Amino acid sequence: MTRKPLLLTVIASSIFAASAFAAAPGNDPAALVKIRDTALASDWAYERLADMTDLIGPRLSGSAGEAAAVRQVADTMRKLGATVTLEPVKVPHWVRGVETGELVEYKGRPDGVSQRVVLTALGGSGATPASGLNAQVIVVRNFDELKARAAEVKGRIVLFDVPFDQFMADRGLAGPAYGQGSNYRSNGPRMAAQLGAVAALVRSVGGANYRIAHTGATRLDDNARIPAAAVSVEDAMLMSRLAARGPLTMRLTLTPQTKPDADSFNVIADFPGTDKPGEIVIVSGHLDSWDLGTGAHDDAAGVVGAMAVVDTLKKLNLRPRRTIRVIAWANEENGTRGARAYLESNKAKVETHFAAIESDNGAGRPFGMRMSVGPQAVKLFAPLQAVLQPIGAGTFRREDVLGTGDLSGLEKAGVPSFAPLLDTSTYFHYHHTAADTFDKVDKEDLRRHVALMASTTWFLANMEEPIGRWSELR
Amino acid sequence: MTRKPLLLTVIASSIFAASAFAAAPGNDPAALVKIRDTALASDWAYERLADMTDLIGPRLSGSAGEAAAVRQVADTMRKLGATVTLEPVKVPHWVRGVETGELVEYKGRPDGVSQRVVLTALGGSGATPASGLNAQVIVVRNFDELKARAAEVKGRIVLFDVPFDQFMADRGLAGPAYGQGSNYRSNGPRMAAQLGAVAALVRSVGGANYRIAHTGATRLDDNARIPAAAVSVEDAMLMSRLAARGPLTMRLTLTPQTKPDADSFNVIADFPGTDKPGEIVIVSGHLDSWDLGTGAHDDAAGVVGAMAVVDTLKKLNLRPRRTIRVIAWANEENGTRGARAYLESNKAKVETHFAAIESDNGAGRPFGMRMSVGPQAVKLFAPLQAVLQPIGAGTFRREDVLGTGDLSGLEKAGVPSFAPLLDTSTYFHYHHTAADTFDKVDKEDLRRHVALMASTTWFLANMEEPIGRWSELR
Repeated sequence: MTRKPLLLTVIASSIFAASAFAAAPGNDPAALVKIRDTALASDWAYERLADMTDLIGPRLSGSAGEAAAVRQVADTMRKLGATVTLEPVKVPHWVRGVETGELVEYKGRPDGVSQRVVLTALGGSGATPASGLNAQVIVVRNFDELKARAAEVKGRIVLFDVPFDQFMADRGLAGPAYGQGSNYRSNGPRMAAQLGAVAALVRSVGGANYRIAHTGATRLDDNARIPAAAVSVEDAMLMSRLAARGPLTMRLTLTPQTKPDADSFNVIADFPGTDKPGEIVIVSGHLDSWDLGTGAHDDAAGVVGAMAVVDTLKKLNLRPRRTIRVIAWANEENGTRGARAYLESNKAKVETHFAAIESDNGAGRPFGMRMSVGPQAVKLFAPLQAVLQPIGAGTFRREDVLGTGDLSGLEKAGVPSFAPLLDTSTYFHYHHTAADTFDKVDKEDLRRHVALMASTTWFLANMEEPIGRWSELR
Repeated sequence: MTRKPLLLTVIASSIFAASAFAAAPGNDPAALVKIRDTALASDWAYERLADMTDLIGPRLSGSAGEAAAVRQVADTMRKLGATVTLEPVKVPHWVRGVETGELVEYKGRPDGVSQRVVLTALGGSGATPASGLNAQVIVVRNFDELKARAAEVKGRIVLFDVPFDQFMADRGLAGPAYGQGSNYRSNGPRMAAQLGAVAALVRSVGGANYRIAHTGATRLDDNARIPAAAVSVEDAMLMSRLAARGPLTMRLTLTPQTKPDADSFNVIADFPGTDKPGEIVIVSGHLDSWDLGTGAHDDAAGVVGAMAVVDTLKKLNLRPRRTIRVIAWANEENGTRGARAYLESNKAKVETHFAAIESDNGAGRPFGMRMSVGPQAVKLFAPLQAVLQPIGAGTFRREDVLGTGDLSGLEKAGVPSFAPLLDTSTYFHYHHTAADTFDKVDKEDLRRHVALMASTTWFLANMEEPIGRWSELR
């Protein structure tokens, strides 16, 4: 007596499933559910994260760590049965040296006392003499103040004391908050150099204050490669307070070296499609990291998340219709030479790229995807969103420009691009610091991250309708 | 028509005031309210905190910073009209040197790769050879495990990987949480040395993980002064994970020096009492700090809080019945030589000490006072609590033993002792690290801190009843 209703329910479910299938041919919701749940039950990515961060550690372009990561990712992908290509890339080879700062003169300084400053050279920084340099510090809070005080800059050390807006970061706007701050890191030293500064400092771009310095790239002119460093938030505030009391003199020693470009590689691992092998869905992260931490969030999480897409499908014996191309990009942090090399070698084949994903905002809890697709394509993702919504990852938000480090060239060329929408409220606590380490990645969050990456990649690789080339619509 | 009720109210208030006076003669509640509100309206302490931390910075025993702090506190107290005595104290003079750690061999290590460890020598640590030492690491989680694996220790580096219990710290038990962890820092290296270890490491004792190391004193035997350091929490976890994979070898370089004892001073500033000048109420903090940060919470806040008691009374033209003795103790951190010197020079005068306060748990929001007094004395503080309750600082909790760094000798000798009851949930995020800096102290919290210190000191200096010598009651 109870069976008939049950049977009716099953039939109803099948009809529903068939109808969902019709809405998105090639994307059986049952497969998406299996992918999601397999990812949620696996720590394969977490183990790979440990391999990359614990065994290798930092992976700055040109370093032994970076070379080891190329080998590790290639080996892992070969074991998963992917076809691995190492695409040669010449990368910058910048090496950190001695870095010390000391406040040696200021109003009210007692005899025999000086104050140590915690700082770290910015990628691309020039060097001071080995014995350091002494100069008076001028503190500015924005570019307008720099311009207004341009006459004071010559021969001085300029400190850009620009606070990171953690309030924004706590409210889903970590990206714009970071953009505001990193603008000074990227461009401040060059502008200071143009005005005759002997060195430039920026307040670290990050929201947790534990006297740590956040490195990152700065864009100096080759003919004015002055020493440039990030000071800890605390030291930026201290220097501002002391400069408000009277003249402040600092002794600064930075001895980084810019060596000849080194040989590196984009690791490209293809998991071939069945009936549309010539169409590519990229899923990626970047292989390199800054040298202070072990780059767990930035961006080992992205690389292992991409690799785990293939692992998940292998576990389920699922083969995609389109080719899934896992890429571990070389040199995102200080040059994006990997992305440029790929764009160059694929310039005649951009049209074969159906879609591209990059995860490069850490492994905070995922909420869904940001996507630069045409407005008409948004509705196509409803079946995928329905599968991801129960794990809180069903929010797919269209944006005109994603601007991820490695996909921006493909994105500009019209390839529909995707990046996980994540909790990034604490991402900039650790980003580009010594504290970006394995322990900061939550195991459950990483499982959800893989569920999102694998489901989305599979969905893209099996979609019936084209998404539409976004550049043609803008 | 409206005047009569108002007048009646005033009369009623006076009767109430008189009755409160009868309950605590010498402690007019109106004076306590004025003291509280004057403190709450003043940033004098905050400015002195800036002077001590920004202008001087670290104040480790024997350093130029410590000497400058002696002069600064003495000058400040003289300006307030106090009678200043510098009590000579011979203090340890331990100086940090080079400190580096590197994980050079472990299972799965790629060619050319090694991992840098963030660490800092513990106060009193011995030195490695200048070129460092290489040894295999043994990781233990407690003393029982050390004993069980005693045979493995000889020639090795022992790492005590003991997590700090932040859950306890978040729930009002930061002290016990710290005690659990610092037990390993204080005693672990000595026990490892006794078993033949060539060096000892402890996981940093603190609850925020930003790859920073927390220093502190360790108690080594003079004949086995091995190198001893705190590693960052992240590195302790990394080393545990790598040691779980297989043998782990570390290269450790620590070159601290123990120099001959240096000359320092307890700064003792008396604000004389009116009718009982021979009875002393101590209010104090410690002058020295560790060398990594600027010791803002530990313990510039305590010193400026004590100094501000006199400033507050001066602003109100109030003179206490008993003598208020502000003490900035020398060498709390690595020897408590200042407290010992004071106890020695006052051993015949302990009975003249009516009460003693030390603030040495930072300047988190104050909730009231911890006090080691006899149970019969608790009720005496009700009028003081009534004045402090509106600012959330009216909780006075009797404890059998306070055990503050500098008062414990006086406390054991029976002097009723007091220490602020504070929010310490984040105190051990910064404690003994480079991040204990001025910006970590909240201006409003410090105002309340001074309100609590000044009200309590005044109340003690004016109480009619003796509190009772607590040692006689135990």
